[in-house]
Amino acid sequence: MKIWCDRANNQRVAWHCRSHPETAESNAYAEVFQLQRSFIGTSPVHVPTVADIQVVTRRPADERPAVILLELPNRHLGCQTYPYDDLVQISRLCRAANIRLHLDGARLWEIQPFYNRPFADLARLFDSVYVSLYKGLRGTVGCVLASSDAAFMAEAALWQRRLGGWMVTSYPVLIDCERAFNLNIGTFERKWRKMCAVAAAIVQATKDFTTSDGRPIVYFTPEVPTCCQVHTHIRGVTRERLAAARDEVERDLGLSVFPWTLPSPFMHELDPDWVLVNGDPLAVQGMDQYFEWSITDKNVDIPDAVFAQGWRAIVTVLFA
Amino acid sequence: MKIWCDRANNQRVAWHCRSHPETAESNAYAEVFQLQRSFIGTSPVHVPTVADIQVVTRRPADERPAVILLELPNRHLGCQTYPYDDLVQISRLCRAANIRLHLDGARLWEIQPFYNRPFADLARLFDSVYVSLYKGLRGTVGCVLASSDAAFMAEAALWQRRLGGWMVTSYPVLIDCERAFNLNIGTFERKWRKMCAVAAAIVQATKDFTTSDGRPIVYFTPEVPTCCQVHTHIRGVTRERLAAARDEVERDLGLSVFPWTLPSPFMHELDPDWVLVNGDPLAVQGMDQYFEWSITDKNVDIPDAVFAQGWRAIVTVLFA
Repeated sequence: MKIWCDRANNQRVAWHCRSHPETAESNAYAEVFQLQRSFIGTSPVHVPTVADIQVVTRRPADERPAVILLELPNRHLGCQTYPYDDLVQISRLCRAANIRLHLDGARLWEIQPFYNRPFADLARLFDSVYVSLYKGLRGTVGCVLASSDAAFMAEAALWQRRLGGWMVTSYPVLIDCERAFNLNIGTFERKWRKMCAVAAAIVQATKDFTTSDGRPIVYFTPEVPTCCQVHTHIRGVTRERLAAARDEVERDLGLSVFPWTLPSPFMHELDPDWVLVNGDPLAVQGMDQYFEWSITDKNVDIPDAVFAQGWRAIVTVLFA
Repeated sequence: MKIWCDRANNQRVAWHCRSHPETAESNAYAEVFQLQRSFIGTSPVHVPTVADIQVVTRRPADERPAVILLELPNRHLGCQTYPYDDLVQISRLCRAANIRLHLDGARLWEIQPFYNRPFADLARLFDSVYVSLYKGLRGTVGCVLASSDAAFMAEAALWQRRLGGWMVTSYPVLIDCERAFNLNIGTFERKWRKMCAVAAAIVQATKDFTTSDGRPIVYFTPEVPTCCQVHTHIRGVTRERLAAARDEVERDLGLSVFPWTLPSPFMHELDPDWVLVNGDPLAVQGMDQYFEWSITDKNVDIPDAVFAQGWRAIVTVLFA
């Protein structure tokens, strides 16, 4: 982002309020690079639309960001992602408006089966691409920044050094990441299909449990998983009660369903200058829990019925 | 440095012109942190003296740096270091002038035997201490920042995150560094004594080879090593001729004396605003070579006479 901004002599950047620079980097964009951030999108719980991007690209040239970051998929929104045709349109809008488009593709490996296209078809819509080598690939730690702009890459290497990194010292994790890449690449279609089947089985197994106004106690965002990672929500229960039910199921059935949950869906954590739409008082009171989880090589072979059995047991303990 | 500067609301920092932030960080202090650097010391080839520090501490309060960095020992000066009593005086001067003192102790493990005192005696003279876990310790990569100021350490952790690092992801190198620490700590006194013996043997073996004005062809900086790392210089020879002589000795005797050399002593690389003292035209023309090397667990058991034999063979090829 810094490099694109410097090239444009424009320190404005834009992303969705639930993107990685907002949630995991302690305001590095401002504290380290003095970038000025604005949010794109009209909902804190949905990824930006083409129309949302158009609002930005139609600003006067001296008010536009130098670069827009898209997180593909968006982790904090349960791996919601963009339809491919929307991406094509967003890319076209940005190029026409002279805005660089940066891909936070930390989970690009995981989301590629959703698009059923080569990685290159996705990458070429962006000016620069970040991909993670751990997460789904299960390397130790590490990532790759890619661009077809050689001068950009040379400048990125200079900034890597300035920020305390150095390729020469990365060899232990690179070796491990190559191993992990070779083990896991090509496995994400199967893991996604498995996640879809497991989610459907859990919804089916818990469908008799609803709130007083008829909403399901257990639900997924997105409703149909986009990849092997998803959010599972449990309505109307505190973290403590849910943890107690989980422990009881683990004791009785030997099934460990999840490690811990968070209040959902972050409404109270959102930046104050964000327009809260669909505000849910239950969420603010911590009465709606969720957890983030994935199908990995560790759980992909567990039968769908086992997942369903565990969840049914938990909601039975809580609500029967 | 950044944290101390922010606390003092003063972005001025100071160090010697051959310190690490000047030679290995691509101007990160200015490009990332907008710090304003000045140099301390009156010679590009000697570490600052107490008098040099006093020049800084006697400046008006609004012209003083917030923090001074000392490199102990100074790698680029052949691991020259400061007498302990000078360090005590420097520390006292800085505290009286309200200037923080930061230790770049990348080679603190190596230099400690020179002082024949516990590490704590050295560390307590400084407000913050950096030590490396590779280099002499031979870990994979990594370092530790230490201070008895807990708020400082918490802020350092925040900046570590902002700059892309994270303790959680450092576990592979930390495990390896602990192994390396346990293997190498306590070995540096022996390696230093060995370096002193080897240097003396090399000087003795090559003492008949001098320049036309009587200066030795082969010499060391410092003349007596301060630790297991030192610079060896060779006068009046180009890099190419020296490499050819080295290869000839390797072929004939099976002794690999050094891998490559650099023009010495960096006069032409110094910052333009540095006052060049003792400028040596030979150095600028690249007719004086040097290389940096260490006694490690790989070469500590090679007899002194073998080092001496190799060097004598090289200068014989070149100057006999």
